[in-house]
Amino acid sequence: MYHLPELTPSVNIRRIAVLTSGGDAPGMNAAIRAVARAALHQGIDVLGIQRGYSGLVEADIRPLTSPLVGNILQRGGTLLKSDRCEEFHKPAVRWQGYEHLREMEVDGLVVIGGDGSLAGARQFAAETNFPLVVLPATIDNDIEGSDETIGFDTAANTGLDAIDRIRDTANSHQRLFLVEVMGRDSGFLATEVGIAGGAEMILVPEQAIDLDRVSESLKQGDSSARPSSRIIVVAEGRKPGRTQRLAQALTERGFNPQVCILGHIQRGGNPSARDRVLASCLGAVAVKVLQAGQGGCLLGVENRHLVQRPLADLGERLPLDPALLELAQLIQQ
Amino acid sequence: MYHLPELTPSVNIRRIAVLTSGGDAPGMNAAIRAVARAALHQGIDVLGIQRGYSGLVEADIRPLTSPLVGNILQRGGTLLKSDRCEEFHKPAVRWQGYEHLREMEVDGLVVIGGDGSLAGARQFAAETNFPLVVLPATIDNDIEGSDETIGFDTAANTGLDAIDRIRDTANSHQRLFLVEVMGRDSGFLATEVGIAGGAEMILVPEQAIDLDRVSESLKQGDSSARPSSRIIVVAEGRKPGRTQRLAQALTERGFNPQVCILGHIQRGGNPSARDRVLASCLGAVAVKVLQAGQGGCLLGVENRHLVQRPLADLGERLPLDPALLELAQLIQQ
Amino acid sequence: MYHLPELTPSVNIRRIAVLTSGGDAPGMNAAIRAVARAALHQGIDVLGIQRGYSGLVEADIRPLTSPLVGNILQRGGTLLKSDRCEEFHKPAVRWQGYEHLREMEVDGLVVIGGDGSLAGARQFAAETNFPLVVLPATIDNDIEGSDETIGFDTAANTGLDAIDRIRDTANSHQRLFLVEVMGRDSGFLATEVGIAGGAEMILVPEQAIDLDRVSESLKQGDSSARPSSRIIVVAEGRKPGRTQRLAQALTERGFNPQVCILGHIQRGGNPSARDRVLASCLGAVAVKVLQAGQGGCLLGVENRHLVQRPLADLGERLPLDPALLELAQLIQQ
Amino acid sequence: MYHLPELTPSVNIRRIAVLTSGGDAPGMNAAIRAVARAALHQGIDVLGIQRGYSGLVEADIRPLTSPLVGNILQRGGTLLKSDRCEEFHKPAVRWQGYEHLREMEVDGLVVIGGDGSLAGARQFAAETNFPLVVLPATIDNDIEGSDETIGFDTAANTGLDAIDRIRDTANSHQRLFLVEVMGRDSGFLATEVGIAGGAEMILVPEQAIDLDRVSESLKQGDSSARPSSRIIVVAEGRKPGRTQRLAQALTERGFNPQVCILGHIQRGGNPSARDRVLASCLGAVAVKVLQAGQGGCLLGVENRHLVQRPLADLGERLPLDPALLELAQLIQQ
Repeated sequence: MYHLPELTPSVNIRRIAVLTSGGDAPGMNAAIRAVARAALHQGIDVLGIQRGYSGLVEADIRPLTSPLVGNILQRGGTLLKSDRCEEFHKPAVRWQGYEHLREMEVDGLVVIGGDGSLAGARQFAAETNFPLVVLPATIDNDIEGSDETIGFDTAANTGLDAIDRIRDTANSHQRLFLVEVMGRDSGFLATEVGIAGGAEMILVPEQAIDLDRVSESLKQGDSSARPSSRIIVVAEGRKPGRTQRLAQALTERGFNPQVCILGHIQRGGNPSARDRVLASCLGAVAVKVLQAGQGGCLLGVENRHLVQRPLADLGERLPLDPALLELAQLIQQ
Repeated sequence: MYHLPELTPSVNIRRIAVLTSGGDAPGMNAAIRAVARAALHQGIDVLGIQRGYSGLVEADIRPLTSPLVGNILQRGGTLLKSDRCEEFHKPAVRWQGYEHLREMEVDGLVVIGGDGSLAGARQFAAETNFPLVVLPATIDNDIEGSDETIGFDTAANTGLDAIDRIRDTANSHQRLFLVEVMGRDSGFLATEVGIAGGAEMILVPEQAIDLDRVSESLKQGDSSARPSSRIIVVAEGRKPGRTQRLAQALTERGFNPQVCILGHIQRGGNPSARDRVLASCLGAVAVKVLQAGQGGCLLGVENRHLVQRPLADLGERLPLDPALLELAQLIQQ
Repeated sequence: MYHLPELTPSVNIRRIAVLTSGGDAPGMNAAIRAVARAALHQGIDVLGIQRGYSGLVEADIRPLTSPLVGNILQRGGTLLKSDRCEEFHKPAVRWQGYEHLREMEVDGLVVIGGDGSLAGARQFAAETNFPLVVLPATIDNDIEGSDETIGFDTAANTGLDAIDRIRDTANSHQRLFLVEVMGRDSGFLATEVGIAGGAEMILVPEQAIDLDRVSESLKQGDSSARPSSRIIVVAEGRKPGRTQRLAQALTERGFNPQVCILGHIQRGGNPSARDRVLASCLGAVAVKVLQAGQGGCLLGVENRHLVQRPLADLGERLPLDPALLELAQLIQQ
Repeated sequence: MYHLPELTPSVNIRRIAVLTSGGDAPGMNAAIRAVARAALHQGIDVLGIQRGYSGLVEADIRPLTSPLVGNILQRGGTLLKSDRCEEFHKPAVRWQGYEHLREMEVDGLVVIGGDGSLAGARQFAAETNFPLVVLPATIDNDIEGSDETIGFDTAANTGLDAIDRIRDTANSHQRLFLVEVMGRDSGFLATEVGIAGGAEMILVPEQAIDLDRVSESLKQGDSSARPSSRIIVVAEGRKPGRTQRLAQALTERGFNPQVCILGHIQRGGNPSARDRVLASCLGAVAVKVLQAGQGGCLLGVENRHLVQRPLADLGERLPLDPALLELAQLIQQ
């Protein structure tokens, strides 16, 4: 449960637009719905921009009505589709998007997405001063300025479900499994899944894989009283094929690892309760932030309070606390 | 992700005991495992007390080994079984439990449970000064001193899954559904499920049901453009049959509600990622709290930090923030 | 996996219509999609009739295109909505429906539904001789002429999931649970859920509840070596409140049963693999049956073969084999 | 629902043994439980052989009691663990197993497993004439003599769940996904998952991948009105890395496929209702087959009837019906 901020309306907002950008995350639809409903409830028009910044640049924009967002709360993916828009790195292209918002008489914009989307929004807001609010939505949970991001909890549960299934069969056979979860730069998802799933080891992208250490640790485990159910959670990392390479190396050292690559499975599925509540709160409050004339911010969660952080202050990736990896090690052995 | 406290060992703990008490909550097993593993890892003996305070009083106690807790992380329920022990309200009975702990040379106790368990622990600790730590575990989320409790997140997702299923059929038929979730005194679960599930109304136990208002609101909905998928989430409340009585009253007023009573379904199921991570962190840190000589406390979560609160200070039920119910109303319409 | 019939086209079908009728069943959407896709693939127009026979009578009919059925395969409920249409019992009303089909130049009709829908279709076909095919879709599995019905498998898995969750908590507390599943006249669902869930007793609607026998059996179980996890599956039966009455009676006899009423939860959820494959095969073959000029039939499954049965021959309810209840008893004890 | 055979007891069976062999399949535990309960119910002793034929050869055998099988019905994996035993191909080793059965006064053996287990059992039975019954359990569904195998339905639903999740994100991004399911020699699982999941293409191991045809078909789809949600289901095949190689080849041709490898996820999870009912029926009837003196057979399902097939007659792999792949193609486009 979150603490909601008190915000006093000071600006007359008559029309807002909303877009989803970057990799999709479960709960984006819940955020779209909350933005739309909270606005429509007050007589504010709502426009849906298709395919992220691409649709903003190409003016691929259509009205959102209450029925249109009426049955999307429980759906993964995003009604508005999403995209990564390389073009949006060019100032001229961003100004084009700005013109479209002016032409359509939009008074405020809500951007739902991850770190790439945040970077685009920061540049856009700095240049144009257009009132916008960014809502953090990524399964990576690595947005500075917010303890939580929309989609992380669902992705963690999806990864955990896979581990639980593998554990059934691992216990039957005393095998070694490598389970690759998403996470190019951040180990939050791997850590959450690894602790929750009781993984023997968690290999995050923040640390290079020390093959000797992995191999040594596996041998120690072999001689212990609990030879069964050995699962290593591996974050995918920047360079594709990380888990396959590790499997190859372990095979050469005499182990017989089985590989599962969850891939985009983690992006889908009905969003969890937590992701829907988070998305609903962020979406509804985003409208109030625009009405309070306080755009140019990320609306995130800090210590369970919904808080605004100026976009200009942000940009670092949220670091992973190593104490959690130590804890994982402690209770595994 | 949680922030873990720094704790310096100051007491020589050689043997601890752990019990689960009150209504079971998914994640209790993960907490038992974390307590046991964190202790065993440091050479501390671990005893499992069966059936809560009843087992303490009857000395129904057996050693926990690493293999015994090796495959319970993902299971609902509790390996140690749980019970409500009326007898434990009597001082003499509590002293009997104390004697058993002394006889078995137990240096510290971890109690995993809800508000009843907390009350028992507070009395026990006040009288005997026995070092103990309480970990909040209840699907009701209503423990003063902790923002979160083990089991709430799983129960919310279970309730949400039911709502999602009902929504499928509600949309096919334009029917009205009453879904009863748990919650005798607290509306946290109903609120979380209701917001996440997009319920038309959320009837919490903190507020009496105003039949005229419910009926009026349903009629307004009927005349709106969105006649489909009408779901009311009802917390069970103190007096059994609350939902059935509401259904009866609504039928008399011309509605045709369908009833689902989730009951104990919400207590089971594989615990969610969040509940397992919470339970794992609390369990591992509980051992450190005992080693730091800081017993007599609840170990809970405040603003994502694991914090200790003296048992003597606690006892109130955590209140529900009405702002969340207003938010639910705002985005529903 | 099913054996598909060989059918030779003999009639020029240019336009077909499809409707879903009665209680919705998971997989109806998969059947709609298969009918539409199989027809469109051959250049046949497809019309979707809304709300079952009601939409036929009121000419609430619209074209179905490939994109319209493009994302429904995995959804519970029915895109075409469903309804029970009392009016359709009147011959004049049925003829009105017939006129609408003629006006819209429909050459064949596919009816997806349960026993009530079958009865309506039989009368309609007998009177008007309009070419139609009925596909069995009901979570009750009680359609004469087909071993399987669309929706049964999903509903069974939903009920089973509830039992699995309750078992977690039952094992923690040694309690007695009554779980009410759907089934007004037929015990197929209760039997499948009961066997799969290891229920101590299965109370089907085909047999009156013998309270003495239930009570006696529970007492025997109490004195056995396995006192935990006692779950009784109760089919809802014709008269509402069956399970509540049983709970009351058992309470009076000194038991303390907990009640769960699954209700319409069982109708929703993503359809199972089996239901989708069944629905896909039936839907695709239904078009071929119409093209072969062999309307006036139920297209069902017998011994894994898709077979046609003349509507005139059908009408009895499929009986439950008592050998299965005996088997359930055998492996429970 | 299955039709159970009538069997008349003719042999005095006092003690039976049961083992699970080969790759584990969800529902094996349900079969173990049914064998044990049906035997114990009649006063027959039950021994559990650990790790398949390995445990038979090494006399790793222990009694199964009713409580021991009391909470396994809903668990994936196998209580008895499973193994592939290369040694069992040697006659001398098989006779060693036979001696252990004689020494322990076992009157009948139930073998639960797939085609490798069946081959071992056939040789063992032919040489020793020891009374045994094989129950088909493999997620591949490819056992001659049985339409269905324990584990297939659960594995299909697990694969389908993955596809449903990917579809969410595929629809958001218009991407191409390759999903690898199990199946070294048989395409049953790929076909079931592909039809149920609405896959654009299903690549079974029975057919070599024609890269030109795949590529051509993908290009046609690109130019169609439904560019979104493109999922290709790929059976793993004999040679590891099949899906990765296909991804590589498609990338070279200008596509950008994303890969998911489900791997052993498909072997785990709570068994489906269908698998548990199948396993329960087969297990209970297996005991009756031994009591009827009719060992030396596979007990399978044909046309929904539980039937016995002499082991000597079996050995071919069940072929996949190409009509189903044609049907999949028909309703996809």
